[in-house]
Amino acid sequence: MAVEKQALEQLEHNHAFTGRHIGPDTKEQQAMLNLLGADSLEALIKETVPGTIHMQQPLNVSNSMTEQQALAYLRSLADQNRVFKSYIGMGYHNTHVPPVIQRNVLENPGWYTAYTPYQPEISQGRLEALLNYQQMVMDLTGMEVANASLLDESTAAAEAMALCRRANRSKHSVFFVADDVHPQTIEVIQTRAANMGIQVVVGNPYTDLDQHEIFGVQLQYPGTYGEIGDIASIIKQARQQKAMVSVAADLLALVLLKSPGELGADIALGNTQRFGVPMGFGGPHAAYFATSARLKRSIPGRIIGVSVDSRGNQALRMAMQTREQHIRREKATSNICTAQALLANMAGFYAIYHGARGLKIIAERVHRLTTILAKGLTTFGVNCNTSYFDTLTIQVGSDQNTVYKKALDSGCNLRRVGNDQLGISLDETTTREDISQLFDIILGAGNDLDIEQLDIKQTDARINDSGIQPEQRRTDAILTHPTFSRYHSETNMLRYLKQLENKDYSLTHGMIPLGSCTMKLNASAEMLPVSWPEFANIHPFAPRDQVQGYMTMIRELEQDLINITGYDALSMQPNSGAQGEYAGLLAIRNYQKANGQAHRNICLIPSSAHGTNPASAVMSGLEVVIVECDSNGNVDINDLRARAEQYSERLSTLMITYPSTHGVFEEDIRTICSIIHEHGGQVYMDGANMNALVGIAQPGQFGSDVSHLNLHKTFAIPHGGGGPGMGPIGVKQHLAPYLPNHRVSPIDRVSPVERKHEGTGAVAAAPFGSSSILPISWMYIKMLGQTGLKKSSEVAILSANYIAGRLSEHYSVLYRGRNNRVAHECIIDIRPIKDDSGITEEDIAKRLMDYGFHAPTMSFPVAGTLMIEPTESESKAEIDRFVDALIAIRQEVRKVENGEWPVDNNPLVHAPHTLADLADSGWDRPYSREDAVFPAGTQAGKYWPAVNRVDNAFGDRHFVCSCPSTEVYR
Amino acid sequence: MAVEKQALEQLEHNHAFTGRHIGPDTKEQQAMLNLLGADSLEALIKETVPGTIHMQQPLNVSNSMTEQQALAYLRSLADQNRVFKSYIGMGYHNTHVPPVIQRNVLENPGWYTAYTPYQPEISQGRLEALLNYQQMVMDLTGMEVANASLLDESTAAAEAMALCRRANRSKHSVFFVADDVHPQTIEVIQTRAANMGIQVVVGNPYTDLDQHEIFGVQLQYPGTYGEIGDIASIIKQARQQKAMVSVAADLLALVLLKSPGELGADIALGNTQRFGVPMGFGGPHAAYFATSARLKRSIPGRIIGVSVDSRGNQALRMAMQTREQHIRREKATSNICTAQALLANMAGFYAIYHGARGLKIIAERVHRLTTILAKGLTTFGVNCNTSYFDTLTIQVGSDQNTVYKKALDSGCNLRRVGNDQLGISLDETTTREDISQLFDIILGAGNDLDIEQLDIKQTDARINDSGIQPEQRRTDAILTHPTFSRYHSETNMLRYLKQLENKDYSLTHGMIPLGSCTMKLNASAEMLPVSWPEFANIHPFAPRDQVQGYMTMIRELEQDLINITGYDALSMQPNSGAQGEYAGLLAIRNYQKANGQAHRNICLIPSSAHGTNPASAVMSGLEVVIVECDSNGNVDINDLRARAEQYSERLSTLMITYPSTHGVFEEDIRTICSIIHEHGGQVYMDGANMNALVGIAQPGQFGSDVSHLNLHKTFAIPHGGGGPGMGPIGVKQHLAPYLPNHRVSPIDRVSPVERKHEGTGAVAAAPFGSSSILPISWMYIKMLGQTGLKKSSEVAILSANYIAGRLSEHYSVLYRGRNNRVAHECIIDIRPIKDDSGITEEDIAKRLMDYGFHAPTMSFPVAGTLMIEPTESESKAEIDRFVDALIAIRQEVRKVENGEWPVDNNPLVHAPHTLADLADSGWDRPYSREDAVFPAGTQAGKYWPAVNRVDNAFGDRHFVCSCPSTEVYR
Repeated sequence: MAVEKQALEQLEHNHAFTGRHIGPDTKEQQAMLNLLGADSLEALIKETVPGTIHMQQPLNVSNSMTEQQALAYLRSLADQNRVFKSYIGMGYHNTHVPPVIQRNVLENPGWYTAYTPYQPEISQGRLEALLNYQQMVMDLTGMEVANASLLDESTAAAEAMALCRRANRSKHSVFFVADDVHPQTIEVIQTRAANMGIQVVVGNPYTDLDQHEIFGVQLQYPGTYGEIGDIASIIKQARQQKAMVSVAADLLALVLLKSPGELGADIALGNTQRFGVPMGFGGPHAAYFATSARLKRSIPGRIIGVSVDSRGNQALRMAMQTREQHIRREKATSNICTAQALLANMAGFYAIYHGARGLKIIAERVHRLTTILAKGLTTFGVNCNTSYFDTLTIQVGSDQNTVYKKALDSGCNLRRVGNDQLGISLDETTTREDISQLFDIILGAGNDLDIEQLDIKQTDARINDSGIQPEQRRTDAILTHPTFSRYHSETNMLRYLKQLENKDYSLTHGMIPLGSCTMKLNASAEMLPVSWPEFANIHPFAPRDQVQGYMTMIRELEQDLINITGYDALSMQPNSGAQGEYAGLLAIRNYQKANGQAHRNICLIPSSAHGTNPASAVMSGLEVVIVECDSNGNVDINDLRARAEQYSERLSTLMITYPSTHGVFEEDIRTICSIIHEHGGQVYMDGANMNALVGIAQPGQFGSDVSHLNLHKTFAIPHGGGGPGMGPIGVKQHLAPYLPNHRVSPIDRVSPVERKHEGTGAVAAAPFGSSSILPISWMYIKMLGQTGLKKSSEVAILSANYIAGRLSEHYSVLYRGRNNRVAHECIIDIRPIKDDSGITEEDIAKRLMDYGFHAPTMSFPVAGTLMIEPTESESKAEIDRFVDALIAIRQEVRKVENGEWPVDNNPLVHAPHTLADLADSGWDRPYSREDAVFPAGTQAGKYWPAVNRVDNAFGDRHFVCSCPSTEVYR
Repeated sequence: MAVEKQALEQLEHNHAFTGRHIGPDTKEQQAMLNLLGADSLEALIKETVPGTIHMQQPLNVSNSMTEQQALAYLRSLADQNRVFKSYIGMGYHNTHVPPVIQRNVLENPGWYTAYTPYQPEISQGRLEALLNYQQMVMDLTGMEVANASLLDESTAAAEAMALCRRANRSKHSVFFVADDVHPQTIEVIQTRAANMGIQVVVGNPYTDLDQHEIFGVQLQYPGTYGEIGDIASIIKQARQQKAMVSVAADLLALVLLKSPGELGADIALGNTQRFGVPMGFGGPHAAYFATSARLKRSIPGRIIGVSVDSRGNQALRMAMQTREQHIRREKATSNICTAQALLANMAGFYAIYHGARGLKIIAERVHRLTTILAKGLTTFGVNCNTSYFDTLTIQVGSDQNTVYKKALDSGCNLRRVGNDQLGISLDETTTREDISQLFDIILGAGNDLDIEQLDIKQTDARINDSGIQPEQRRTDAILTHPTFSRYHSETNMLRYLKQLENKDYSLTHGMIPLGSCTMKLNASAEMLPVSWPEFANIHPFAPRDQVQGYMTMIRELEQDLINITGYDALSMQPNSGAQGEYAGLLAIRNYQKANGQAHRNICLIPSSAHGTNPASAVMSGLEVVIVECDSNGNVDINDLRARAEQYSERLSTLMITYPSTHGVFEEDIRTICSIIHEHGGQVYMDGANMNALVGIAQPGQFGSDVSHLNLHKTFAIPHGGGGPGMGPIGVKQHLAPYLPNHRVSPIDRVSPVERKHEGTGAVAAAPFGSSSILPISWMYIKMLGQTGLKKSSEVAILSANYIAGRLSEHYSVLYRGRNNRVAHECIIDIRPIKDDSGITEEDIAKRLMDYGFHAPTMSFPVAGTLMIEPTESESKAEIDRFVDALIAIRQEVRKVENGEWPVDNNPLVHAPHTLADLADSGWDRPYSREDAVFPAGTQAGKYWPAVNRVDNAFGDRHFVCSCPSTEVYR
């Protein structure tokens, strides 16, 4: 033990987490710096980041806390939330998360740290889970095609409107929304319509439909007040008007009610939250979206489909990606990118765990208790809707306030409807004791009602009593695929979950070096609070005085993000990055409109931009004009200036990513922003690459007016195998009044800057987006603190440069910035290799799987390249293992180049290799089985792709998005 | 939806969990009954279980609760526990469980559902983890050999006494225990010594050692009051008296203090709890046990050692099992069977996560804060021990009570020492604020002490100030093996944990059909409460008014177990099954002694008994007499009667397992018990097979006087990959006063029957054993309830008979009871197969791995057999898959029998097969690689053994129980 003098404070060891989060330790960092010829981390950053944007002050974020300190503090905030029993409904319900799913999916890094399944060979587990989810949706809705989830029910309805618009050939411009659609959905539809030239009419579809020139109709089934309408008659009427019909339906109700598909709907959508996903004060949950077969090529979002691999075995993958924004760009009519994979999987597993019979038991029980409640209330002259599944809206007249408060005193939240009604939604968790309590609250303690006596035991009579017409009852079988009847014991369920988990490559296996996607550590301490009931079991529209812990946590996170980005105000509402882009552009648009500049509708976008940028611009009513890049990958300033001048009058916005999508700190970013401002435009800076900026430079301080932040990239929310994400936006003062708001649950007082109600409406269903995952980012910031946050950015830049440095002898590193440095990612150019050898970037990506890695980003932003982002969390050893693999692959390519291996028969084009290859007795390739599967030698943690290379085109030609029949399946 | 009438109550669906716990659903149960020709489950049970023992009344256990109801109720109990800050020490300390370990080990079924690693080829992950643990223990203690953990520090000390006795050739009979050994350890030693002819002297080793004829000495380092004694001088003195020295040492203190090994100790032992394992009101934690090399063949418990597999690759396995009770039986000097694998692994991982530097930071910080505390107190004239690491015993005179209560008022527990002192132990979680609070408590709020000023920044001066002599300071390096420096970032740690997990076969992969070991579902809902802070973070000696939730939970579990077993009283103290046997026999012995029958010292044990039975008997001072079994595997009643008559005067006890270890309900069990009672003896019924009895028959009602219950078998506590277990004992009224008690924390008022303090002392360190896992069994009983518990036993019997039925055409089923039925397990006889083909039960066991199964129990209770127990949790599909595998293997054996395959070159003798086999280009066996590794076809969940067949003998010849050097390791 060396003689040492140390300040006592250091002994507190508050920075411990920084050492846990950052992969390379000090010694390893030094070795990496040595390779780069940089004296220190500080020196490297100075060489890399333009001096003009460097922060002059230390980050205004508190000092780092230990994991235990941060957890204890957050615990004290959680304790300020009060978990009331929610009867509010409106699409959010209490639910029992099956413990086996909670522990082995939601709380299991094997599931939550996986990436979006763009590499299907190493994603067959969650692809199968998502296919099950789609099958469940198709079964319950009676539709022919379902996607793998959207963000929430309200944005799904907005997508439905866009889909109706696109698919319907009529020239009509009215989208008719039934007045019993959930109010938050109405608002999101209205927000979305505003820039699409669509007129939204909210009215009574039974009486008003034929008074408008409609192209589409949105219904709620059952309605927000509980009534089960005669959907069939409206669909008939709409058909006559050549309008399409979208039905937002409650999945549990559909267990008993005739499906939208059978009723003739074109689109069905809704929230799957009540299938075993906590309410979480608004999310994340998976919204489902299903259509008739004829709409399959227009359906937004990701779809999982069945295809085959190179051995002809069945293999799953994302289908028809040509529909999506990253291909269609400004021609896309949706910017949806993130899905809610983790939550969709939870909902799908819930259906598998319960099966048709189990769901029926739950649905019938909820309905039966509702019938008892209705009967008891009407006995005392309290009237309610005449038909219902689980929701009653009761007439209480002038007692509304009294009863509402009495409920609060009993720890229950009811829904206020108008001035004289109250809404009560029951759910899976409701008990007979709860019904008695509701009787006491509404009727007084002396009501003397006997639940057994109120109960109607005969099913037909009971259904009839609840106003459900015989023709509204479901008669067809659901969930008949064997998957839904095999896993009802917990043992079987556990093994199924584990079997799927073990097919998938996640951060638990090794590096996922995805450029732009920032697959960093999702620390356990960050994840633990997500499961706390005080965060999980709260309705998004619970009275604010019950969620003071949430409010404080959100306020603190907002303030920290503001301090990190240099903006003045922030909105937590956008629940994905693309949603954030859209909300940010809306803020700009509405600001410009409010200032008499509604005519500004040109959006400049560099050619290298992510596909969501142009898609979001179009959704916001902007016209996209592309700005060229120069040979260094930077924005061509001359072209930018020319365009800005050309469109000066109409210039609305420049969308730009910084550091650039090419992974470079452009020198001229301040100049670029100035040019836009000079022409009266606004700068939208895409925050996808904030991981290179935190603690180093602030977009809000070097010229940007608004950015979204991908909390699921930079701020440690895990990718969940394809969602959830969170895309809050920061804005400068002048845009603050135009941040999203929420009529159902106004949010003026949270942000430090006052917002205008009339400014910009809701862009998502819940006021604070997917609130229950915000503790992850909160913990991340608190634990890293001022110095740890900065250090993370620095090491992310160090690691990327180290990779570029080691690889540069073997591959061409495409773009570099000042002093030949890259930012936090680097692009290697495979095009010359392809020219010489015929080996493609895809072959290399697939071959990396044999070496035990997930591929980097392929062909973005430049076709024929690989973009590598190691993040700060990967150790030097893992980075070296990865670089060694790429170098070894380069040597393999040379054997193709020099003719040793035929171009169509070598380990690269046949990659990835599987156990089927290893066991193939007819092996006749010019390389050995060992070289195929153990190119880096036999390792302890060998990861096996579940299938050989997947044939994407085959699946698109033979499109199937449901579970294959058992024969095929086995 | 069928028209149905259903009672509302049924809709509550309280029995849902029974359907989750039991594998085969009603339809499958019927199919299984059909094969057996039984009309119904009831009929099968009637045919199987002797009518004489059938329960006449339904089980007196409450109705089943849903998972949510049970969790909510238990939550309300947990809320009655008050989590105070503990300064009590005495071997239990607050600790920070690293979240990555908590989530991915403690809360991960991949770790907690694994079985004891008797099959090393599919257990390399936890074997490596346990080897790391041993390395950590050897490093910190400076000893040459360490085992893979014992139950707790106190029983480890009792084992040390036994080891000293055995290893020391001296005729001396005194075991000298220093008076500053933890008091609970002194009591356990005294209890153990009582029946071993050992005289325990508790005294001051510095003055009294030479006054006794000692064979061994037990020391505490640092002492229970905090003083760091001059251990070296005592060891020197003991050497002169030819006595061996065992040192109970605090692992964290050893980071700074010279190790027992360097000081010359023969044995080092202690608790590893403070290395990241929650206190849990007493356990479970792993006790470590380490010795000098010369004692390696006498060390109790399991040791993991390094060996090679059939390809010559390094492979780990349990070493030198010939030492253990299951081999040595009555010649064993320890009955230890269960270890604390899960907790040992957590402690080992804690050391890996922190590394030498991290542990040093923690140890130095704790010591530094203690120095500050001591200095501050002495400034005010409050005296304490002159040397210390983390514990001060302060002189407070007549203020003892006042200060103690003031601490309570501040939410702090101090330790009362005598009438005028208080003990304060600091730990990893202590902060500077805590020190200030302690100053305020002890000195009053106006003390004005400044922590920075009290701090001594210079290390040497600080160490010196705390009374640690220069020669007592540690100077050698610790944890130098690379494993302890590779995994300090959370990403690396997570991957290492996952990599090890994925090497191991657990219940997450498939059936573990271990006869007698009952590998049933460990439901997630049962496991969740173990993590609740209100159960996890409580010191075992916390004042009882702070643990009212624990008390109620334990009382309810006791009462339920009493009602299940038909006994009158119960003790939760024994923390393993073998410990339960021992405690049960002690109760009998002490009862007999109290009734003037001390001379009764014969214990009859059937030849088929588990090896722990004779070992426990010997430890209790009994003489074992074997009773023969007849050809049906039943106890030979004539022989039993003869022995009972022969030893009538001296007959103490019959130990018998029911249903028998042969898996049969013996018809004559009542007669057997009567014979013993007629001769004045007592019946000890081993509860290992309670899984066939719960709800069907009660040992306490058909003739037994005492049983232990394996909560980790029948009552759903997971096996943890080799522990923890829990072995509470139930007794009839007359034995109740002789249940274990606990002087430090008396337990008279918990059990329904008054106990005698003077009856039987403590058998374990904590009053209620491993309390924090009791919620698992509590949940299990509450959720299954009256009907579910019985149904579980019935289906367990059904499944075993179904297996016996399907296998009987292919294998000889060795023993059957009435109506040709087996109980809950069945034995298949491999001896005839071996005679015909040379293929052994081991070959078949290993070949099952290729088919994706864990082997059944091998060669117990009959050599050359396999004992299969499916439990109620396995579905018919999984059971059929297993039976199909065994049938396919039988057909493989026929190919050896008919000469198609050579006896020394076939897939059975080469099993299990690995990836190395599959990739072997020099493959030249008479069967294909596909047949080797995919005998049941390629399956989704193919499980790969990590190594080929392990050579046990090689490892024992070249004994290594530390981590191999890096070269070997890679």
